[in-house]
Amino acid sequence: NLMKVRQKIFIPFVLLYILLAALGIYLIEPKTFKSYLTSIYWVITAIATVGFGDYVPVTDLGKVYTIFLYITGIGLLSLFIGRFINSVYLIDKMKIGGK
Amino acid sequence: NLMKVRQKIFIPFVLLYILLAALGIYLIEPKTFKSYLTSIYWVITAIATVGFGDYVPVTDLGKVYTIFLYITGIGLLSLFIGRFINSVYLIDKMKIGGK
Amino acid sequence: NLMKVRQKIFIPFVLLYILLAALGIYLIEPKTFKSYLTSIYWVITAIATVGFGDYVPVTDLGKVYTIFLYITGIGLLSLFIGRFINSVYLIDKMKIGGK
Amino acid sequence: NLMKVRQKIFIPFVLLYILLAALGIYLIEPKTFKSYLTSIYWVITAIATVGFGDYVPVTDLGKVYTIFLYITGIGLLSLFIGRFINSVYLIDKMKIGGK
Ligand SMILES: [K+]
Ligand SMILES: [K+]
Repeated sequence: NLMKVRQKIFIPFVLLYILLAALGIYLIEPKTFKSYLTSIYWVITAIATVGFGDYVPVTDLGKVYTIFLYITGIGLLSLFIGRFINSVYLIDKMKIGGK
Repeated sequence: NLMKVRQKIFIPFVLLYILLAALGIYLIEPKTFKSYLTSIYWVITAIATVGFGDYVPVTDLGKVYTIFLYITGIGLLSLFIGRFINSVYLIDKMKIGGK
Repeated sequence: NLMKVRQKIFIPFVLLYILLAALGIYLIEPKTFKSYLTSIYWVITAIATVGFGDYVPVTDLGKVYTIFLYITGIGLLSLFIGRFINSVYLIDKMKIGGK
Repeated sequence: NLMKVRQKIFIPFVLLYILLAALGIYLIEPKTFKSYLTSIYWVITAIATVGFGDYVPVTDLGKVYTIFLYITGIGLLSLFIGRFINSVYLIDKMKIGGK
């Protein structure tokens, strides 16, 4: 039951995490991140460990904030992507199994 | 049986995913991605989470598309690379085991 | 018992590893890494496999040191991030379970 | 027994893979990779999925070769780093256990 609640709130929690994390860097380094969409794109690029490097923190506070994002966000997005793959597989199974 | 079908279509599915994903970014940002091969190289570099940053999306649509690629592609390529390693090991086993 | 000791020293060990690894690159390439905070930021960005590329080793010794960091640090930070996610889940469980 | 042989040749195999992979890119793009050490550094940076982007393939052949490296190398280095972490833990156990 608790497990089900946890699973149900997982996706909204990840989305909220990304939106707030993007807001944080947008406020900390407005000169680097000129739009909120760019901030969201950068946060996801960072915690997906892609790290293109087209946008990077240049202030000390921005760098410390980025380290904090790695620790709190990389595992989270990894779980999110893992669940996405699994759910696609499960939906697929149900569709074929239901025929 | 269903599992075997799934395994059989997995490699063509990943290849099709990459070819279509590359076509998408090629059409969205023709100025950034000047050849289709470059688009394929960029898609695989992105979803393998290498992200060299030699090619990056510069438009808002391109950035949103890139986020969509992370969510749908990173898990997929990770599975693909995992299966590659396993299949190499299995072929290896059969060869030595068959002697 | 040994397992508990291992778990207890894990976080301080990772922190010490990062601080010393950052000191190493700071001493090897002072021209590239102009502050100790930048060195810490770079080490974590490298072993988290994000690799923005805003700071990179330019000397041969720096490059060899970076290879050494990959081998010793990537697995370590991956464990650290995995434990972080798990511990957040456990604390969460206890809180809700205790109600 | 076969498993033990496999484990014994794993580290030399990974080292040989890296040395040959570096030789390949060194021959394909001598203008990009001006030294063999740089080629080795680039190959490991690529297959560790760090991808700083300080060196990138610029020719079509170089890009195709890089895709081939991702598929054959990322899983391999991931196994290597995983084994490194495990072996450090085992050595550690033996040392403390032996006291
Ligand atoms: K990168
Ligand atoms: K990366």
